[in-house]
Formats: sequence, structure tokens, C-alpha cells
Amino acid sequence: MWAKTVKSKSWAGLNSLPSVISSPQNQYVKLYRSLERRKNRDCLGLIPLEGVRLVEDALRRGIKPEAVLIREGDSHSRLAYLDSDFPVLTVEQKLFDKTAFTDSPQGVIAIAPRTSYSLQDIFYAASPLILIADGLQDPGNLGTMIRSAAAAGASGAILLPGTVDAANPKALRASMGTYFNLPVVEAPFNEAIDIIRQQNINLVTTGAGASLYYDRYDWTVPTAVIIGNEGAGVSEKAAQAADALISIPMEGAVESLNAAVAMSVMFFEAARQRR
Amino acid sequence: MWAKTVKSKSWAGLNSLPSVISSPQNQYVKLYRSLERRKNRDCLGLIPLEGVRLVEDALRRGIKPEAVLIREGDSHSRLAYLDSDFPVLTVEQKLFDKTAFTDSPQGVIAIAPRTSYSLQDIFYAASPLILIADGLQDPGNLGTMIRSAAAAGASGAILLPGTVDAANPKALRASMGTYFNLPVVEAPFNEAIDIIRQQNINLVTTGAGASLYYDRYDWTVPTAVIIGNEGAGVSEKAAQAADALISIPMEGAVESLNAAVAMSVMFFEAARQRR
Repeated sequence: MWAKTVKSKSWAGLNSLPSVISSPQNQYVKLYRSLERRKNRDCLGLIPLEGVRLVEDALRRGIKPEAVLIREGDSHSRLAYLDSDFPVLTVEQKLFDKTAFTDSPQGVIAIAPRTSYSLQDIFYAASPLILIADGLQDPGNLGTMIRSAAAAGASGAILLPGTVDAANPKALRASMGTYFNLPVVEAPFNEAIDIIRQQNINLVTTGAGASLYYDRYDWTVPTAVIIGNEGAGVSEKAAQAADALISIPMEGAVESLNAAVAMSVMFFEAARQRR
Repeated sequence: MWAKTVKSKSWAGLNSLPSVISSPQNQYVKLYRSLERRKNRDCLGLIPLEGVRLVEDALRRGIKPEAVLIREGDSHSRLAYLDSDFPVLTVEQKLFDKTAFTDSPQGVIAIAPRTSYSLQDIFYAASPLILIADGLQDPGNLGTMIRSAAAAGASGAILLPGTVDAANPKALRASMGTYFNLPVVEAPFNEAIDIIRQQNINLVTTGAGASLYYDRYDWTVPTAVIIGNEGAGVSEKAAQAADALISIPMEGAVESLNAAVAMSVMFFEAARQRR
């Protein structure tokens, strides 16, 4: 289906049929590979999308990719959105598999512009619920948190310095397309805290021994939750800035939860109380 | 500290000081490496423990390892439990790093007997709360679920055929030692369902469109929750066997949650209602 589209649209200016890319020196192949590095994603303002689902989600939200690359021999009739105004290129099988970041790629990747938000974008809600990631290192964890935050109706996420990039390929995969649903902003600590104070948003974080259980906290109040690093926990200055420390009671001498699980348990308690 | 222990105890029968293992052909090195494969773990009844935390947890619970291997040059004064009756061996640095399964190992690994439970072991509680894993493929997800189940006060987990091994090195790492806190049993579908019926335990699972929200379900009732495969969800026969289908309401067009997150949100709602 898309092949026809390619011929009639993107390649309209050419007199030949689209040829199959087989050179690792091809500009799009090189560009895609370069997006594995955060520095390049930041400089170029581009992110690598991998898999039918993520590419579809981006297109559905009106994001116009620089290019969509499809593995030779793959059929992608689901990608109906490809009837649009950007290059759709076929890449020789082995080269495609080397270009993609996943071990067993689905056969569709895209180079997309990075969505850009400012801190103001996450305070639109009547009663904001905000995730503040403080030094999270595991891209899978961050992606899972973005997915949970979006599902729980959060208004956005603030990533403090030292936190992994939300457009890291592994984070994008774990967020399952919700990267495009939730405003995510990088901001320095002081700037983030200042705007939260200005907006009268309650700042909370977790403390292992905190006597206030998470389900006794009033989540109907505008709230921002700081989630700390997987190993070291919340930074000292973040803990000191917090208006309240809350804990998730645990049985059986278990000391801690996975960071994304702890965050999700709190955010879905917030959603429950807000229903 | 432990070096003294080693000399005076485990090596008491030898007239020489413990030598440093430097051969990849050493029996313990070979045995440890062989435990990366499930088949070998099952046949030998042994599991590979990696990192100070996991080894400590095992020792604290009275599990006697076949051997503890320590990287040459590492100090492990935290491992006070090593004052015991099993071999503690020093392994040459590069060989140790190749033997361990993690990329940056902590310097302590152990070969431990697999803990063994029967289905009966998970029904001891006054009001059981049981995790049933139906075809979970991601060892990190399973380990995270075991950690959450233990923390939420669950009575045990049943792994149906097609589910990854709970003693998979990645699963063990994600469970953060809770593998030793929670009875985990592998069982065929029919056997698991039969005992759940006999014990009058309510069998529930998730269904995307289910009208019963998870927080409206009465979790004080003895309950077993089937969690399906990350991609395909719960199997059809599992869904048909369930007494109730429940859902976690989601905002923003998000279609699903990470499997470990969904499980944790339900189990902590159970813990909340049971408090």
C-alpha cells in the first residue's frame, strides 16, 4: 500500500522508481545511527523512532518526520499515515537491521523532530499532578514512568539535571508512544522549584521511614512528586525542599520498590482519589 | 576480615593458604557459568547469586551456598555471614569479571541451592493474595513483580508454563533479594486452577474494557491475580477461568501499562484495603 504512496508522492520529483538503500554511507542511515547519542539528539533536535507503534503514534499526533525508513521486503499496510509529505525510503534488509537500535527490529524506523515544551506547558491543568525525575539513570525506568504518568492523568514531567534523556531509544521504547502524550521538560533544580512554589503546588517526595502513608496524603491538591535515583534515592536538597515526605508501607522486610513501581503506585492512588 | 575467616574455617583442612583461582577450567568457575542456562539450574538445583545484597540475603535466610567467589583485591567486610561452613574462594580479577553475568560485577558471587516450594506453601495465609504469571517473558519484569508482591504482603507466586524462570540472573537482580522472601512455585495451568478452586480463592485477571475498576474490587477476599504476557496479554483459557475481569482506568489515550506496573498498582490497592 505505502509503496504506491511513495512513488506518487515523496518521489514525485524524480523520474525513476525509489531505489533500495544499500550503503551504510547513506545520509539517512548515518543520521539515524548518530541519534543513539544524546549530544546529537540535542544538537540536531531530532529523535530516533523505532517500531510501527511509535512511528504511528508520532504521525497520528501530526509530527512530520524527516524520513521514514522501511526494511526491504516488509509490508506495512498498517502505516496508513504514510500517505503524506515526507520521504519514505526502503533499506536493504541487513543494513536496516544494523541501522536500528533494537536487536530484532520491526522493520520501520523514523527520524522525527523532537517535541519541545517549556515549564509553563505542564501547569495547564486545573489541579496539576507532576512527576519530577531527580537523577534517574535507567532509561527503561524513565520510559515506564512517563507511560504511567500519562495513564494516571499527570500534567507533565520535569527532568532535573543528571536524569537520563526521555528520547533515549530505550526510554522511548518503554514509554510506548506516551512520549508524545505527556509534556516532558528538562529544567535546573532551582528553576523547577521556583515555578512550583509560584504556582502553589505541593512538593512531596518519598522517605523510607516517613510516617505519612501515600494513601493518607490528599492527592486532590495540586502536587509535584520528586522521584530519586534508583540506587541513591532522592538528593538531599530535593528532600529538604519537599513540603511532605510520604512512604509506601511494605511487608516482609522488603526495603524498597522498583523506582517506576513506587512512582506508579502513588500516581494511581492520586488518580483514584481524583475520580 | 573475611580472609581470616577463610583461613581458619573453610580451609582448615588444608596446610596451605588459599590460592587465587586463575583458571577458567576451575570447577566452581565452570559451574557458575553453566548456571546462566535454565536447563542447568533446573538439573542441578542450583542458582547463581550476584552482588553483595543478594548473597547477604541468602545467607541471612540460612541458605548454605555451595561456594562463594570473591574478586581478588575486593574487601567484603559487610559479608559478616561468611563466618560459616562453606568454601569462600578468591578469583583473579579478570577471570572473576568474565565469570559474573553482570557487566560491572560487585565482586561477590555465589552458587546457592534453589529454594523449593510446593503449591501448598502459598496458601498458608489467612487471606491469601497470589500472583499467577501467565507466560511472562521479560526476566526483569518477573523479578520486579516478585519484589512488589513480597512488599505488598502477597502469600506467593505461581508461574505457569511459558513463564521465564524466577532464578534467571536478570530476574534475581530485579527481585533484589525478595526471591528469598516469597514462595514461588512452577505449576501447570490445570493444577494451579484446581487448587485455587479447592481453596475458595477468587481468580481475577485484567481485561482492557472491563467495567469493574481495580479499586472497586474487594481485595479483602482471598484472591489470585493472573498477569499475562507483556505483548499478548492473558491467555484465552486463563481469561475464561477467571471469576472476574478488572481494569485500571487510564487517561490520555494510553492503551496499557507496563505489566509489572499494572500488577503492582493492583497489589498495593489490595494492601491498602487490607490495612
